[in-house]
Amino acid sequence: MSADPIARLAALLARLPSIGEKSAQRLAFHLATCEPDYLAALSTAVSGIGRSMHECSACRDISPDKVCSICSDARRDPSIVCVVAHPQDRAAIERASAFRGTYHVLHGLLDPLAGVGPAQLRIAALLERLRVLDGADAIAEVIVATNPSVSGDATAMYLARLLDPLGVLVTRIASGVAVGGELEYADPNTLTRALADRRSMGRP
Amino acid sequence: MSADPIARLAALLARLPSIGEKSAQRLAFHLATCEPDYLAALSTAVSGIGRSMHECSACRDISPDKVCSICSDARRDPSIVCVVAHPQDRAAIERASAFRGTYHVLHGLLDPLAGVGPAQLRIAALLERLRVLDGADAIAEVIVATNPSVSGDATAMYLARLLDPLGVLVTRIASGVAVGGELEYADPNTLTRALADRRSMGRP
Repeated sequence: MSADPIARLAALLARLPSIGEKSAQRLAFHLATCEPDYLAALSTAVSGIGRSMHECSACRDISPDKVCSICSDARRDPSIVCVVAHPQDRAAIERASAFRGTYHVLHGLLDPLAGVGPAQLRIAALLERLRVLDGADAIAEVIVATNPSVSGDATAMYLARLLDPLGVLVTRIASGVAVGGELEYADPNTLTRALADRRSMGRP
Repeated sequence: MSADPIARLAALLARLPSIGEKSAQRLAFHLATCEPDYLAALSTAVSGIGRSMHECSACRDISPDKVCSICSDARRDPSIVCVVAHPQDRAAIERASAFRGTYHVLHGLLDPLAGVGPAQLRIAALLERLRVLDGADAIAEVIVATNPSVSGDATAMYLARLLDPLGVLVTRIASGVAVGGELEYADPNTLTRALADRRSMGRP
């Protein structure tokens, strides 16, 4: 740690995702000229966020409550579980208002080169949920909504193989050209997947 | 302010430069899963940065001391002052080790549409430095090292007109194709300026 307050703050900021050394230094310089009220509010929010947020005992999403608002909502369908990598993915799906089941947050994706195996993800907690729920609450379908990337696809494949013997239907979200997007600008991998996953439009 | 700790932290982070709403939310989610030690260190560094850094009474750069290390360094030439918009610009020039004069930090650029006029910048402090220094310390040259952008050029022009009657030489840093850059990828404005500012190579 450097004795220079700017360098010290920049080093801490540079450990955050998507903030490089240059951005971190820029942010540190900016913060040094901010109003004390703002700095106090930000400092309090940062130190408090770890204390006020916990993993939901069911879906492992982060929540201010022991059981998150979705898992404790009786109107949500507990028989369909949507598996996501990160809490922000859950938030993105909720914003679309297109899913009425529950979630399971893995807190990462399988990435052997980075030392992330099944034990580093909340996969045991998912198996536990599949085991304890029964009757009307039994989980019938697990939708794997990880990114269509190498590690996202590998994680989906791993879960499909793991859950198949348990008699649970495992599905994968569709991947292809984004709605409103243009074919002309779609990358080759996306177009390949969009063609391979084409669907019948039925008869008129 | 929202009651949700994630939304509250994200709203504070979104007020930082170059951090949009999406990035702020992503950072907030990430922070919620960070180690308490890291959160405590970051919180302390944020709350302390405003207290530990002040504007240098001479050049208005931010510094842990009342007079910054450059202004108090007897080996620096006080007769040449390099004017920059932000402390990080001063830091960038120092890293190049190509300047042995002193600096003056404006803390912004003229931007009438955003309500930034001469009174919002540290221009009065620059005039004061020009007035009080005399003899060997008299300022002979002011190098305007603002970005080659609309507001950077406008600020340079304003300073040139303001300082000209005081008998101070006002110069502007050169602008053109970056060293190591490729003409093929230079934008038209940069090429236009590079051609207009061409220099004689003298006779062999």
